[in-house]
Amino acid sequence: MEINYKNIKVIGFDADDTLWVNETYFRDAEVEFGKLLSEYETLNKLDQELFKKEIDNLPMYGYGVKAFTLSMVESALEQSNYNISTKSIEAILNIGKDMLNKPVELLEGVEEVLENLSKKYRIILATKGDLLDQERKLEKSGLTKYFHHIEVLSDKQEANYSKLLNHLDIKPSEFLMIGNSLKSDVLPLVNIKANAIHVPFHTTWAHEQVTEQETNGKAYKTIKSLRELLNLLN
Amino acid sequence: MEINYKNIKVIGFDADDTLWVNETYFRDAEVEFGKLLSEYETLNKLDQELFKKEIDNLPMYGYGVKAFTLSMVESALEQSNYNISTKSIEAILNIGKDMLNKPVELLEGVEEVLENLSKKYRIILATKGDLLDQERKLEKSGLTKYFHHIEVLSDKQEANYSKLLNHLDIKPSEFLMIGNSLKSDVLPLVNIKANAIHVPFHTTWAHEQVTEQETNGKAYKTIKSLRELLNLLN
Repeated sequence: MEINYKNIKVIGFDADDTLWVNETYFRDAEVEFGKLLSEYETLNKLDQELFKKEIDNLPMYGYGVKAFTLSMVESALEQSNYNISTKSIEAILNIGKDMLNKPVELLEGVEEVLENLSKKYRIILATKGDLLDQERKLEKSGLTKYFHHIEVLSDKQEANYSKLLNHLDIKPSEFLMIGNSLKSDVLPLVNIKANAIHVPFHTTWAHEQVTEQETNGKAYKTIKSLRELLNLLN
Repeated sequence: MEINYKNIKVIGFDADDTLWVNETYFRDAEVEFGKLLSEYETLNKLDQELFKKEIDNLPMYGYGVKAFTLSMVESALEQSNYNISTKSIEAILNIGKDMLNKPVELLEGVEEVLENLSKKYRIILATKGDLLDQERKLEKSGLTKYFHHIEVLSDKQEANYSKLLNHLDIKPSEFLMIGNSLKSDVLPLVNIKANAIHVPFHTTWAHEQVTEQETNGKAYKTIKSLRELLNLLN
């Protein structure tokens, strides 16, 4: 099914790795974490166990830097068999704080695209990170003026998007979601008969990866750069 | 200025300590924290320093249990002069997890009031906690069906409420906020010419306390129990 661009009333943009760099900072944090714990385990094992911890804690902590920091502390305690130093625990807290203080690095074409589309469509930011962190990034980015508002979703599954459309008071066919994650920004939309465009980022968190089977036969569009939206939506 | 109830279209309810018990769990957590650190400082000093740490971290972490847990870990490291055991750090993480797993204890009259008002008004939950945590509590409470949606605010200052009213597309005079915190649920609303009703809870976090000077001459109503809303709004 082709996207019928004429029906679109609201465009939702994912934030992290769609508008600005994010996953890169998580990968950098994992490298720092690995250095602090290197005397206890191999890097590969440290990474694996940290990822496992994040997934275990997901139902309780949700997404975002605070959740990630808490999982790093817990994983460090366990993987060091409680031998890690308290100074290293402090260093882990600081990895998290540094992530929250990172500058916002916009991806290519973002401002041009938003400026253009915001004249014609209601544009919202739809993210599952921490609200405060996303507001701060939006503020730093200088892009606030293009967005009607921010929608924070506790997860990005079909039910979350259905609730969002109810709340926006629009039909699925009137909503277009744009993001880098097939799992979170594309497939749930296609499944509820809304529209989605995939803009891949070079790094994808393991938790966001999907199999070819899951995407097989699903109607969504993939573009290489946000700039292509200007041709599609004008 | 009296509230003109006939103008009200949307009612915002604060969640924690307005619909269900919350602050009590934070006070209990501080007692647990105090026990873990009791060999290093007096209880009074431990409490004071933890509060200071929370306030210092507020611009970065925001509100909610994850932020509180991270501040407890940081405060424990510093107050023990890095002598705290790694098992105690784990115990602190578990204090936070226990808070997230607490049952939801509804305050008196909540369900009756929401059931009644939801027939006549659009009701939203307006909270500055973690979205996931608040969604989970709402789910556990069985109250989901009465709310149009949840609005998570990164803070509850005038600007946040103004943004909310824009987003809801209503005038200040059409919005009524109900909550236990004068600072967060009442005064900012009065200041932007919206309406507010104060329902005090027996315990108020130090950060939410206001002076008599701040409330002096401000037009808001105080009720003792949510049930009084049924007389006011019917």
